[in-house]
Amino acid sequence: MDDILLMLPGPTTVHPRVLNAMSKAVVNHRSAKFGEILTETTQLMSEVFQTPNKSYLITGSGTAAMEAGIANTVAPGEKILNVVGGKFGERFMKIANANGIETKELAIEWGTAVSPKQIEEALNADEDIKAVSVIHNETSTGVTAPIEEIGKIMKNYDALYIVDTVSSLGGDKVDVEKFGVDVCLTGSQKCIAAPPGMAAITLSDDAWKAVDKVENNTYYLDMKAIRKSGDKIPPETPYTPSVSLVYAMNEALKIIKEEGLNERIARHHKAAKASVSAVKALGLELFADEAVSSATVTAVKMPEGISDSEFRGTVRGKYGVELAGGQDHLKGNIFRIGHMGNISYKELLQTFGAIGMTLKGFGIIDDAGAGVASITESYL
Amino acid sequence: MDDILLMLPGPTTVHPRVLNAMSKAVVNHRSAKFGEILTETTQLMSEVFQTPNKSYLITGSGTAAMEAGIANTVAPGEKILNVVGGKFGERFMKIANANGIETKELAIEWGTAVSPKQIEEALNADEDIKAVSVIHNETSTGVTAPIEEIGKIMKNYDALYIVDTVSSLGGDKVDVEKFGVDVCLTGSQKCIAAPPGMAAITLSDDAWKAVDKVENNTYYLDMKAIRKSGDKIPPETPYTPSVSLVYAMNEALKIIKEEGLNERIARHHKAAKASVSAVKALGLELFADEAVSSATVTAVKMPEGISDSEFRGTVRGKYGVELAGGQDHLKGNIFRIGHMGNISYKELLQTFGAIGMTLKGFGIIDDAGAGVASITESYL
Repeated sequence: MDDILLMLPGPTTVHPRVLNAMSKAVVNHRSAKFGEILTETTQLMSEVFQTPNKSYLITGSGTAAMEAGIANTVAPGEKILNVVGGKFGERFMKIANANGIETKELAIEWGTAVSPKQIEEALNADEDIKAVSVIHNETSTGVTAPIEEIGKIMKNYDALYIVDTVSSLGGDKVDVEKFGVDVCLTGSQKCIAAPPGMAAITLSDDAWKAVDKVENNTYYLDMKAIRKSGDKIPPETPYTPSVSLVYAMNEALKIIKEEGLNERIARHHKAAKASVSAVKALGLELFADEAVSSATVTAVKMPEGISDSEFRGTVRGKYGVELAGGQDHLKGNIFRIGHMGNISYKELLQTFGAIGMTLKGFGIIDDAGAGVASITESYL
Repeated sequence: MDDILLMLPGPTTVHPRVLNAMSKAVVNHRSAKFGEILTETTQLMSEVFQTPNKSYLITGSGTAAMEAGIANTVAPGEKILNVVGGKFGERFMKIANANGIETKELAIEWGTAVSPKQIEEALNADEDIKAVSVIHNETSTGVTAPIEEIGKIMKNYDALYIVDTVSSLGGDKVDVEKFGVDVCLTGSQKCIAAPPGMAAITLSDDAWKAVDKVENNTYYLDMKAIRKSGDKIPPETPYTPSVSLVYAMNEALKIIKEEGLNERIARHHKAAKASVSAVKALGLELFADEAVSSATVTAVKMPEGISDSEFRGTVRGKYGVELAGGQDHLKGNIFRIGHMGNISYKELLQTFGAIGMTLKGFGIIDDAGAGVASITESYL
């Protein structure tokens, strides 16, 4: 089981240094020692978010941080504009609905990206919109939204700018301060490459003002409580945190710092470019528009003549590489290659080697080696 | 830092087997392999809850499960009776309030236990009460509530019986089926002795009927979604779980099974009895009524002539034992000894040795050895 290469859009293969960090003895979460680790970890988190503001950790999945981000900044009955071009865009809307927030959907064809102009038009058409939610990297379709350009539009409006960077932060450019993002959130198990189970969030001054006004419906995810504990010296969390995952995040963020954030992002883009070239070389088709294809996950149309279970089952069972399938209506129609975290040419060689051999094995293609050859060309 | 003995009411010292389990490679949370681990873990969880019903894991602290337990079974505007005799009783009430539920407080003096009769009277006085929340083991005061006897009363009423066993399950008797508990929840880091960050919950048929009727305000903690994913074959979680903590829970629950649940509970009671005897032998006073003093945490009044920071600072700094202080208005007035998880006479000897030497060092007592002598007598 340990020999499977995870090429999923999360969780990703975790570095042994990070796994080892988790096996350290658990300390008291109300101790000065833990406060030191938490201080360092949240500071490293803010560096990756590229914000002068504080970051806060939440024990839970990225979805918990999505809910914390919306339910604390938009009041029940207020209106949010949700950009929906995939499963996670939908999730933001469902979360808003669950919290009694009025939602307005800006529907985008799955596989394409929202344009800043569409958001500008939606904001001009309805001055009651209090916030806009955008998924930076729509994991379900492999599409990246232009959050820097959208940020330029958002600066002309009072609405809060809420961005989910769960599957992009640490692998693609996210400059919270420069882009003017008011609420930015992420998860531990994607490009940060720690195990799943921890989320992080950072808020702008405007977002905190909204938090102070909103009467939310949540206790566990109440940002006022999270801020109150997090701003103590030494900092704490309001409820017992996953101490071991804080160790893991701490180590994973140190690895990011050692590599350099810009170098890491460039490495992810290089992997994405190589993956796209290999997909084409194998005669396969991208699901996402190439111009907006993600730096961290490549979605590919399932070729005719082979089923999802035959394809991914063989890639995994025979060649030890785990790929993701499609979600919801894309189930069976696409497969997704996550290239997040600690990924270099060698994992892509194994992945496209496995894909090429599988497709040739089923008689779908003639040249099993075109993908891997393209990876070497791309990395040269 | 690894040499500190944690005698806290959570987190507790984690067995090396459990720490090692966490350092296994992370697998895909949507894989058959993870489904097997999740199936086994939730079955082991149901054995500890002593219920024929399914258990579900939630990535989050025990507080997340408290919110899931209330927000899904009592609708906004409906009424809940909250037994409040400490910080966690209060928390249940705050959670209910945050979710728009009307609360009725049954206030109990901190350090004492609620009686079944008080609950019966409160139910007779108000037929609108839809649920009653009880903390089995009030970690903040070291008091155990008589949940078996309360259960006998609850059988005569329609109200749901919601019991928090965060700091008791696995260390004191909790028989969900026999006691007629409708919603039972716990955390990973107390008597189960896994690291913090994971919670578990189980619901009766009546509780599930309520879930199907209630329109809740929560997305991350929505029990309908948790059930839908958990009942798949193989089972899943609706959002990415903390895979590493599921490994840890799995191993910790296997350790419980190897020891035997009844044997483990007896061991906790033995440790509690020895602790109480040692407290008295040192001339100290219990905070809780002795008759209802907890099997898993002993709360002790801080003796005159020494401050909390002098006392606990020395016990930790000089002797390497970490005790908990009081919470809220009990801060500085009590200290708490957690004897949860993997605790035997030897940890209690170290603990009461450290307490005795510290108190004698500050001139509070004459006989530093009375506590440890009492531990040996008690264990003989």
